[in-house]
Amino acid sequence: MWELTVAKRRSAKGSGEGWEEETEEGGVGANLPRPTKIICVGWNYHAHAGELGSAVPAEPLIFFKPPSAIIGDGEAIEIPDGVGRVDQEAEIAVVIGRRARRVDVKEAAQCVAAYAPLNDVTARDVQRNDDQWTRAKGFDTFCPVGPPVAADAVDAGKLTIVARVNGVERQRGSIQQLAFGVPQLIAFISGIMTLEPGDIIATGTPAGVGPIQPGDSVEIELVGYSKVRNPVIARPA
Amino acid sequence: MWELTVAKRRSAKGSGEGWEEETEEGGVGANLPRPTKIICVGWNYHAHAGELGSAVPAEPLIFFKPPSAIIGDGEAIEIPDGVGRVDQEAEIAVVIGRRARRVDVKEAAQCVAAYAPLNDVTARDVQRNDDQWTRAKGFDTFCPVGPPVAADAVDAGKLTIVARVNGVERQRGSIQQLAFGVPQLIAFISGIMTLEPGDIIATGTPAGVGPIQPGDSVEIELVGYSKVRNPVIARPA
Repeated sequence: MWELTVAKRRSAKGSGEGWEEETEEGGVGANLPRPTKIICVGWNYHAHAGELGSAVPAEPLIFFKPPSAIIGDGEAIEIPDGVGRVDQEAEIAVVIGRRARRVDVKEAAQCVAAYAPLNDVTARDVQRNDDQWTRAKGFDTFCPVGPPVAADAVDAGKLTIVARVNGVERQRGSIQQLAFGVPQLIAFISGIMTLEPGDIIATGTPAGVGPIQPGDSVEIELVGYSKVRNPVIARPA
Repeated sequence: MWELTVAKRRSAKGSGEGWEEETEEGGVGANLPRPTKIICVGWNYHAHAGELGSAVPAEPLIFFKPPSAIIGDGEAIEIPDGVGRVDQEAEIAVVIGRRARRVDVKEAAQCVAAYAPLNDVTARDVQRNDDQWTRAKGFDTFCPVGPPVAADAVDAGKLTIVARVNGVERQRGSIQQLAFGVPQLIAFISGIMTLEPGDIIATGTPAGVGPIQPGDSVEIELVGYSKVRNPVIARPA
């Protein structure tokens, strides 16, 4: 299920048209193992923190999604019975390329192997009910990830993430809007726990989260580089 | 670093004296891969929930520790600068032996490969300060795990976990005191996320958590079967 590939932009326009993916032997994708952990960052865009009645904290707020939640392009997001509202959350994901332990901000960029679009699917009512977010964020299929794009193939200072539900845009955020940027996040997280190659950091979601339901189609695009598109279904009995 | 072994009780007295460990080729230990996730359970002993001013919730409260936090017997627990109080938390850990997805309580016992002593080391002040417990529980070295003991080699209904700091007992809990028992936990968690062979469930800590500091020696024993003993040091610069 989890095969990392290298997405290449075929169109010079970067519009998402003409987007294709390829696996390159020996490329960054071929060398990326399955993640040993997925570290997510909460409240990392001011506008999103505000829409949920919160604020960007003084230090990054981190939490985990389990690797068992990962699905790829085309696989279904399964909504369990009785969980109430479930939201899409479009995020720019960073894939770690080398072991990182207590790296400083200056070294951090060297640890990034690739970027990918990630959907931090969240059972919002469960999240509000539970003291910890583990369950709300951890259901099987709640972590769609698109094909990673090699870090040296993108303009990392200008990445944009977009969410579309049934073709209608709901979220659009720039990497420049992150309250804590990628180097700061890598320095902060690697100061707590050693990052391993393949590990994923989901950098937070911009404003515009909203409910998804069976029958919907959800697409998260790292604009011009990579997409992950998933139908939403009720979890089969 | 992470090699699962089979602990065997050499002494018939189960006192911890004469305890040794062995690796058996083809035994349960030899077949257990490194965990893809460590799921912990909060407030699962009434007396411990009370000592932290909380109560056992209506459903299990789950959270993750990262696999990068695991250390083995004899390795040092490293206290980072400036985190304040750090506590030991003795726990009975369950090691999963087969893929488990939405198993019911009756099937759950078949999913257990082994039991082990685990120390859910917690930066208590950080835990109280952060909205999520990820950082407080996730520092490197904050998850000592002792050699797993094959499930069919123990009396699973009578397991006891003990914490000793500098030889003085601080915690003692029986598997019979768990608010949510092992089958209920496996059913609950596997209904959310697929459990993989090697995954660990830490079933919660009994009353008696308390601070540890550089110079201490912390021992967690699954009484009569397996121990993990770790010196505490300040994290090297």
